[in-house]
Amino acid sequence: MTERGLLIVLSGPSGVGKGTVRKAIFESEDNDFQYSVSMTTRKQRIGEIEGVDYYFRTREEFEAMIDKGDMLEYAEYVGNYYGTPLPYVLQTLEKGKDVFLEIEVQGARQVKEKVPDGVFIFLTPPDLAELRLRITERGTDAPEVIDERMKVARDEIEMMSLYDYAVVNDEVPKAVERIKDIISSEHFRVDRVIGKYRKMLEEL
Amino acid sequence: MTERGLLIVLSGPSGVGKGTVRKAIFESEDNDFQYSVSMTTRKQRIGEIEGVDYYFRTREEFEAMIDKGDMLEYAEYVGNYYGTPLPYVLQTLEKGKDVFLEIEVQGARQVKEKVPDGVFIFLTPPDLAELRLRITERGTDAPEVIDERMKVARDEIEMMSLYDYAVVNDEVPKAVERIKDIISSEHFRVDRVIGKYRKMLEEL
Repeated sequence: MTERGLLIVLSGPSGVGKGTVRKAIFESEDNDFQYSVSMTTRKQRIGEIEGVDYYFRTREEFEAMIDKGDMLEYAEYVGNYYGTPLPYVLQTLEKGKDVFLEIEVQGARQVKEKVPDGVFIFLTPPDLAELRLRITERGTDAPEVIDERMKVARDEIEMMSLYDYAVVNDEVPKAVERIKDIISSEHFRVDRVIGKYRKMLEEL
Repeated sequence: MTERGLLIVLSGPSGVGKGTVRKAIFESEDNDFQYSVSMTTRKQRIGEIEGVDYYFRTREEFEAMIDKGDMLEYAEYVGNYYGTPLPYVLQTLEKGKDVFLEIEVQGARQVKEKVPDGVFIFLTPPDLAELRLRITERGTDAPEVIDERMKVARDEIEMMSLYDYAVVNDEVPKAVERIKDIISSEHFRVDRVIGKYRKMLEEL
């Protein structure tokens, strides 16, 4: 019996290093999941390969996908759509393979609504653990600057509350190890495996 | 700020090898948690050390602990009490250290009621994953024998449903690695860390 794969979503505030961590995970030896290629309406650049870097589609094609409910998540940046096509993700999960998405926080929120049993990992800046320092201890900063930093920190923490795990990106290899531990242990969660056992008994 | 430690509970059907796995975890290099010494009313045997193997207490002393609500879990076997004293566990967690309990399923159920945010790991026999084989494929077994095996399997699966994780004990070193991955990733769960960040902001 094939166990359904896990949908793993890595996200976090912009500039936190999601792309670097994702690359390091896929370059590490014992990874065993599929990276989901994004779809975009922006122009293909020289050297970029269709189906590897992106699926390149027209605006009309992309909007048709949205209308059919075939986008797991999408957003518009600088006049172009970027998103994750749903069919490939579902097929891969059904085959028992884990799918790894590295996306922006707005996208992660959409995925959470559609696939609530995904594994949602929030990558935090190294200094979120040193919030106090970052916010107040520069001494000479104007109150408005401190207020702004407080607001940013508060927003990041509230974003985090939608996720299952918060991993500090202090050093890339450490963050990679933490994420790999999380993925392997999620496979042992009772609510993910007990159905398999129950079904086995029923079928006897 | 000290983060509260995790209470880790390893349990499973009798004979599954809980003790062996627990020993291997504590003998492994990078373990960083406290083993909670049990309390018992049975006689101290030659070579056993008070506070290392067990806390040896009289029946009256043990029952006084129960009455005060000072036992995290306990049970009676063959006329003697065995259990986990609560105060040491709480002090250790408050210090930010993880506490590891290896106990019977009845005890785990009591702990689940008192400390619902503990990490509950169910160790399964290697052949629970091969249930069908175990139950039916011996060919010559009488229907009563098969029924009995079905019942045992069903009970094990229902026990499992109270736990967070189910780890197969196919090979001890593998089970140890899985359990260590689970413990390290549980430290990154958002519901365990977000309070720390929120408190930090409030205190600014």
